[in-house]
Amino acid sequence: MSEKRLEALRQQIDELNLEILRLINERAEIVNEIGKIKEKQGVTRYDPLRERHMLDLLKKHNKGPLNQMTVDYIFKTIFKTALKQLESDTKKELLV
Amino acid sequence: MSEKRLEALRQQIDELNLEILRLINERAEIVNEIGKIKEKQGVTRYDPLRERHMLDLLKKHNKGPLNQMTVDYIFKTIFKTALKQLESDTKKELLV
Repeated sequence: MSEKRLEALRQQIDELNLEILRLINERAEIVNEIGKIKEKQGVTRYDPLRERHMLDLLKKHNKGPLNQMTVDYIFKTIFKTALKQLESDTKKELLV
Repeated sequence: MSEKRLEALRQQIDELNLEILRLINERAEIVNEIGKIKEKQGVTRYDPLRERHMLDLLKKHNKGPLNQMTVDYIFKTIFKTALKQLESDTKKELLV
């Protein structure tokens, strides 16, 4: 019985993972678009105030079970890695 | 013009963040449930084969713009931090 239950729960996790994947990619596309606008304006991409605003909004809406420390850590990773990869992609484009 | 566009894009990012938050919390609830079943079976929560399966599935479905290294890094952070917090919560429950 519990094996079947485990299998069903794992299936749910797989579906959630794919949905999260879709959203972080959609997010990266928008971050990229923002980056292009900022580039034209001559300002840097990284904006600590904007990051603070995003984390505060997440804190306000977080109902758990993940606590705020965990949520902050996951999102800082999402912010940082996405920005880093997109910046490196832009550099490669410029080198072509 | 570009300020208005920036504002609209940031609004989209905020909405995506909240949707990602909802999904990682939903995911954590299921991870917790799996943990309880495994505990009854007397097996450890961390399962490297299962983690490999999840990363392979994500790789298969990743259409970018995030590359696989970035996706792996973000998901390993989600796997690790969620498990760590939930394990620490369980310990606290046992101590009460």
